[in-house]
Amino acid sequence: MLREDDLQLKGLKLLQDDELFSFGIDAVLLADFVKCKKTDRVLDLGTGNGILPILLYGKEKSKDITGVEIQKRSKDLATHNVEINKLEDSIQIIGEDLRKYHSTSLFDVIVTNPPYQLESSGEFKREVEKAIARTELKCKLEDIFETIRRNIKIKGHIFMVHRPNRLVDIFSLARTYDCEPKRLRFVKPYLTSVANLVLIEMVRGANPFLKIEEDLVIYEKNGDYTQEVYKIYGMKR
Amino acid sequence: MLREDDLQLKGLKLLQDDELFSFGIDAVLLADFVKCKKTDRVLDLGTGNGILPILLYGKEKSKDITGVEIQKRSKDLATHNVEINKLEDSIQIIGEDLRKYHSTSLFDVIVTNPPYQLESSGEFKREVEKAIARTELKCKLEDIFETIRRNIKIKGHIFMVHRPNRLVDIFSLARTYDCEPKRLRFVKPYLTSVANLVLIEMVRGANPFLKIEEDLVIYEKNGDYTQEVYKIYGMKR
Repeated sequence: MLREDDLQLKGLKLLQDDELFSFGIDAVLLADFVKCKKTDRVLDLGTGNGILPILLYGKEKSKDITGVEIQKRSKDLATHNVEINKLEDSIQIIGEDLRKYHSTSLFDVIVTNPPYQLESSGEFKREVEKAIARTELKCKLEDIFETIRRNIKIKGHIFMVHRPNRLVDIFSLARTYDCEPKRLRFVKPYLTSVANLVLIEMVRGANPFLKIEEDLVIYEKNGDYTQEVYKIYGMKR
Repeated sequence: MLREDDLQLKGLKLLQDDELFSFGIDAVLLADFVKCKKTDRVLDLGTGNGILPILLYGKEKSKDITGVEIQKRSKDLATHNVEINKLEDSIQIIGEDLRKYHSTSLFDVIVTNPPYQLESSGEFKREVEKAIARTELKCKLEDIFETIRRNIKIKGHIFMVHRPNRLVDIFSLARTYDCEPKRLRFVKPYLTSVANLVLIEMVRGANPFLKIEEDLVIYEKNGDYTQEVYKIYGMKR
């Protein structure tokens, strides 16, 4: 079933489909974590319903964003979401397997909220479209790094959100594909919880030095959002 | 100048020399983080004044520990520390460059509190002995991984304490040397601080899966040690 969400950001809207993968807080946090110049050309790998390009536009981070999505229904929804927000001049959605995607000109910035789970994890097997978005069924982490390296400028920046338990994979692939992790931020539900997400900035061809930032905490003890999350969502407390 | 510290652990003592590297909370936290069977043969790479073998013995983690130390004065002090505690039957100190160390029989467990800083960091250059203990002057992280792989059993466990900003180096070398990171714990001064140490357990030849544990917090808001740190130090609040 389709439903329309108000993104609380300059009147931007997003249609989501319950039968496909719906965006979560991950995309919102990643869009906030991205640092780029307004003139940067940005690529979103596995754009789903187009949430990241629309948020990056809304947060005035870029006006030239390309989203690549392998699944036809998601790609059609993303295209529709660009249209209802009248962003055709700024956001381009391409229906293609990212493993084959090769842009004619390299990007300044690449963002990605890739499938978190290894293909072998049994969940979601029956719901194929959700499974493709959530597990490495169609696209392994290494495929993403290959595609990143093929499409990013030297000294271009890469922003990724993932699960902390995949950090060894991420860091070792990052080195293999010459994308040095430079900035890391863990996301945890409560101040005393274990982190369940991690935001990572990498720079193609940079020297090693990793800066770890303060943890991003989602909830106060009483279950309210923290001030920072309110700010990221653009809401007042 | 030599001074004698009471380790607050079964009457164990430790002589330290102000002109050499003195042990800090890192060694205490690492000794606590180590999980092993009493019958495991343990190797400590870069043992300094012998603090880790003595703590591991005192915490009843092992009764067969070998410490390797390149610096003669530190090695002599470690040997003396073993003697004043009458632990000659359990702890063996070897004066050798760990880069050349090759045991005749492989170890079940390897622990290491290696130099944290890259050789290029300018600090300590005038104080050579401290510099060797603190920077990668004599021993790079990769040398340590090479020595680990040469001396550890398949499925043997490796425990390391290091700086979080070296995590990319650690994880990518760990994969290269077939020591899979399995358990990770960040250490932070206060609950809301950024982590300044990280404890890592790796297993030679294991499958990928990293478990991140709850952060270890050193101080309460009011500057007291936290309950966990009191417990690790074996002190009552």
